[in-house]
Amino acid sequence: MLEQCERSSRIYDGHILNLRVDQVALSDGAKSIREVVEHRGAVAIVPMLTNNRVLLVRQYRYAVGKELLEIPAGTLEIGENPDTAANRELEEETGYKAHQITKITEIYMAPGYATEKIHIYLATNLQPSKMQLDEDERINIEPMFFAEALRKVRSGEICDAKTMCGLCRAQEVLG
Amino acid sequence: MLEQCERSSRIYDGHILNLRVDQVALSDGAKSIREVVEHRGAVAIVPMLTNNRVLLVRQYRYAVGKELLEIPAGTLEIGENPDTAANRELEEETGYKAHQITKITEIYMAPGYATEKIHIYLATNLQPSKMQLDEDERINIEPMFFAEALRKVRSGEICDAKTMCGLCRAQEVLG
Repeated sequence: MLEQCERSSRIYDGHILNLRVDQVALSDGAKSIREVVEHRGAVAIVPMLTNNRVLLVRQYRYAVGKELLEIPAGTLEIGENPDTAANRELEEETGYKAHQITKITEIYMAPGYATEKIHIYLATNLQPSKMQLDEDERINIEPMFFAEALRKVRSGEICDAKTMCGLCRAQEVLG
Repeated sequence: MLEQCERSSRIYDGHILNLRVDQVALSDGAKSIREVVEHRGAVAIVPMLTNNRVLLVRQYRYAVGKELLEIPAGTLEIGENPDTAANRELEEETGYKAHQITKITEIYMAPGYATEKIHIYLATNLQPSKMQLDEDERINIEPMFFAEALRKVRSGEICDAKTMCGLCRAQEVLG
């Protein structure tokens, strides 16, 4: 069912994303247009504290116009290994280092138009370190019981896709 | 923690998405740039057949360069109510109508840069109707046991975020 690119137009090369528009031939020869948001990929981490608590972060999300409660996450640096990025982002966003960090899933966020894949990790045995936010990041840390986070998924208070996927997979892995 | 738009540049107005780049003032007065992919929003449906089987769809996803196994989904028409869209997309993509269809969650796919919200529904009491794909859609229907779909989430064969969220929420709702 492959689709072949016949012509590609670069529309925008930006800071966290690029946009291109391709003319493609579908598997049966029909033509169509595919708008593609290029994104380097990202990591997200489910950081477990002692006592079955999880560390979430609350931040204003300009694109959707509201504050969201999420697992810590961040974009890969150019050429950066996802494992390295997961350790880096966890420390930068939460001020904790993990002695154990394991990938629990990889997901495509919007495969209809975006290349972005997020690598999701489970981090345990956390130890306080030094928080170091990006220049344009304003983040509040919110530790809570894991069961409370799952309740917030059910109630709709947690409505970020990577966070829902991460908590769901972590619940299974933690048993 | 609000961020105020100070200047907005429209980069692209397209078929399924638009792109704009805004200069914003953060809550403490610092300046930054926000790249925003505007998307009308979408619906996705977890369609349950008899015998604890779920109806998934397999399609080539050009942006990520591979075939993915997903729950049926589609973009909202302009001004379309999500409930209406859920019934329409289910019928168009799978050839089934649902006698019962209930929203089980709403999620933001990539709130760091995209406005897209997906409304996810659970559809039960399905009845055969008429499939009617969009001109540029090439989709294969794959019914399977719900437990098998969950295994494919664990194994990584299902790696689409909305599908993982939909199956996870449906599992809870179905009990």
